Amino acid sequence: MNMPAEKHQTAIDELRARFGERLSTSTGVRDHHSKDESWHHPHRPDAVVFPNSTEEVADIVRICAAHKTPVVAYGTGSSLEGNVIPHHGGVVVDLANMNKVLRVSAEDLDVTVQARVTRKELNAFIRDQGLFFPIDPGADASLGGMAATRASGTNAVRYGTMRENVLALTVVLADGRIIRTSRRSRKSAAGYDLTRLFVGSEGTLGIITEVTLRLYGIPEAMAAAVCSFDSIEGAVDTVIQTIQLGIPVARIELLDDVQMDSVNKFSKLNYPVKDTLFVEFHGTEAGVKEQAEMVQSIAAEHGGGEFKWATKTEERTALWTARHDVTYANKALRPGCEIWATDVCVPISKLAECIMETKKDLKDSFLIAPLVGHVGDGNFHLGFLINRDDPKELEEAERLNDRLVMRALAMDGTCTGEHGIGLGKQKFLVAEHGEAVAVMRQIKKALDPQNILNPGKIFTM
Amino acid sequence: MNMPAEKHQTAIDELRARFGERLSTSTGVRDHHSKDESWHHPHRPDAVVFPNSTEEVADIVRICAAHKTPVVAYGTGSSLEGNVIPHHGGVVVDLANMNKVLRVSAEDLDVTVQARVTRKELNAFIRDQGLFFPIDPGADASLGGMAATRASGTNAVRYGTMRENVLALTVVLADGRIIRTSRRSRKSAAGYDLTRLFVGSEGTLGIITEVTLRLYGIPEAMAAAVCSFDSIEGAVDTVIQTIQLGIPVARIELLDDVQMDSVNKFSKLNYPVKDTLFVEFHGTEAGVKEQAEMVQSIAAEHGGGEFKWATKTEERTALWTARHDVTYANKALRPGCEIWATDVCVPISKLAECIMETKKDLKDSFLIAPLVGHVGDGNFHLGFLINRDDPKELEEAERLNDRLVMRALAMDGTCTGEHGIGLGKQKFLVAEHGEAVAVMRQIKKALDPQNILNPGKIFTM
Repeated sequence: MNMPAEKHQTAIDELRARFGERLSTSTGVRDHHSKDESWHHPHRPDAVVFPNSTEEVADIVRICAAHKTPVVAYGTGSSLEGNVIPHHGGVVVDLANMNKVLRVSAEDLDVTVQARVTRKELNAFIRDQGLFFPIDPGADASLGGMAATRASGTNAVRYGTMRENVLALTVVLADGRIIRTSRRSRKSAAGYDLTRLFVGSEGTLGIITEVTLRLYGIPEAMAAAVCSFDSIEGAVDTVIQTIQLGIPVARIELLDDVQMDSVNKFSKLNYPVKDTLFVEFHGTEAGVKEQAEMVQSIAAEHGGGEFKWATKTEERTALWTARHDVTYANKALRPGCEIWATDVCVPISKLAECIMETKKDLKDSFLIAPLVGHVGDGNFHLGFLINRDDPKELEEAERLNDRLVMRALAMDGTCTGEHGIGLGKQKFLVAEHGEAVAVMRQIKKALDPQNILNPGKIFTM
Repeated sequence: MNMPAEKHQTAIDELRARFGERLSTSTGVRDHHSKDESWHHPHRPDAVVFPNSTEEVADIVRICAAHKTPVVAYGTGSSLEGNVIPHHGGVVVDLANMNKVLRVSAEDLDVTVQARVTRKELNAFIRDQGLFFPIDPGADASLGGMAATRASGTNAVRYGTMRENVLALTVVLADGRIIRTSRRSRKSAAGYDLTRLFVGSEGTLGIITEVTLRLYGIPEAMAAAVCSFDSIEGAVDTVIQTIQLGIPVARIELLDDVQMDSVNKFSKLNYPVKDTLFVEFHGTEAGVKEQAEMVQSIAAEHGGGEFKWATKTEERTALWTARHDVTYANKALRPGCEIWATDVCVPISKLAECIMETKKDLKDSFLIAPLVGHVGDGNFHLGFLINRDDPKELEEAERLNDRLVMRALAMDGTCTGEHGIGLGKQKFLVAEHGEAVAVMRQIKKALDPQNILNPGKIFTM
């Protein structure tokens, strides 16, 4: 079981000849690349290789293509739907060495990074120039992985997702060709939008090796606050009205009472254990004040309490770190458990109904699941705390998730707002997209006819 | 020459049997569908058919597919690169009857329209609900055509282009299958981004029959102004600094002195004949005031004169109507001429250099070309006034455009910011995208193996 599968041995031999010590078949290394942060069952690759450049990635893919050996790109392993688990074995391409910021243009508000630079590394690098990159999934994910997953996070309500913030990609195709998908201009009508095709393709159409991203000037003023509500309806209605009025909130996040309890315990905070909104405003001093007053007044109408402001940078950082750490907080609630994170996203007018019906389901279940969400986008997560070796728990999580997804689809929403399809959401793809899935398959077949790139993800071919 | 080509006669006979009087082979109707608003030479289709529904479009495509007859979708005919000219003949699908707004959701700030609803028709329809749709190419184009061309316009600097504002599409594929590309949620990570693949595909991958769009609340306050500059550098530097400071201008448009003269004459205005910015601010009363003060102060530092404000709705409308009518204004400068519109877009830091070098080229040429642009995006147009039957003029326009495009590409810009490739920009596609063009061709081949959908556009197969 610990030995490389024989059928991929030729590819591995050739890769070893080419990469020497930068190829590993050790159990420890393979184990590390067998899993992500989800409940999905691990599967070891046959080998892991560590390229230093786009050209080396192309060499790896060419060797694997010659032997029909699967190739799975790996960033930080923080995916939540098994997206990077090499469950057909083969070769994992760990981009760990491709961690350089290649260029920053403060004048054009853009940057080009190698795929394994993480969002926090990028922000540390550009902070001194008064710039920031807003997209922030909970984990400190790699920017290549975030592009591949079409990730978003807490700032998407104002700044968009990776879909809106990737300007161009360098991609290695299934036959080893290297393309750059776009130039650096802010818009273009020159041919098919390959950038957006590869964003969200989860490594099934190509391996992203470089990413050009939009940047933003750090706002003149930022203010964050926490507000507790008497009821979850009140919190959700506050969000809906804020969005409908077009108030340009930078962040507006919902955490239910169960989630707040978990956050308090993990991050040693003492917020009221109530349904709560975390909000943030960006703009000029006057603009922030104006936005904050409008949202406070909406919240007050819906049973919201006082806004507890985090004005100092350290307080703001502590607040958002606590928010970003919910997955780890939830894991700590039940030592040894895994998190099954749901991820529906619905039109904003349906959000209250979707959340209320879901809470009713939860009330009748034996599973515990804190609720947290980027509710300004209509996107929220339950985090089922499960023992993945207990079929009863898996079955119950699946039952609840099925109901949740079908509810979201009936509301013209999606089964995944930001985690991707990976292994976990495949059964919903046709329910969501119908015949359009056949078009996706045609594209996959055209660009990866041997099905070697992250095979079995999004759909089986 | 006026008779339908024999090879498409079988398809036309079948279409006539199916559509009766809604199919036309009259010279007048075919003439009307032989051209767009560009300098490109007209070519008549063999027949024109007027479907009433997505299903009827699917029937047309199925019949044409059975006989390998080209199918070209037609909205308002306002394209600028020959995008809708049926230059291989075949059947034009005029969507004129598909002009209904299917649903509006003020709560979700979105709308679904049939493809032939124009941007002005949509805005008239939703105005009473306090909503607007910002994307505004000069012409009153159809929303399906705007999606197919990845159009933008004056508001893109703030609101994005069709790329950012299309939520979902209904598309008829090359074999008559009908797909919907996405649900209505604001974001999704569920599979490949087919919405963005069809946006900008110029009818070569499918025929867009319905479009779901983001809407925006009409801002509490709007203010527009015109400001003349002593030099074009001053005007451009004002734009660059405004963008770099992240001031959320709604519109910031440059018109050079030649263009202002043309606008004055056509729209009976008396602006100074100088390099000029048209700007607009959207927001709260206080926000608009704050933005306006910032931009005024930047302009003053760069030789800008007084801001001439258009505060009343009628004045604002007159101002932007004059701006949108530049193509017609330029045509009127030289009766009988055609407009060859260039369309480069560059990173904002390169904009001044790109414009200044281009103006130098123009100074040495015998052709006249007003300059106008969505300069906040780094996008600007020259409008060469040409007699397209004079080879010397065509050659000179081509020479200048070649130089302009290669200059933009050297600056990491694009050959087309918003007009598309159509017939006119094909020779630049490989220079801009390199090997990525091969990927576009693979996708085209996978989705339209017989090459019947708008054949010969974007690239020849």
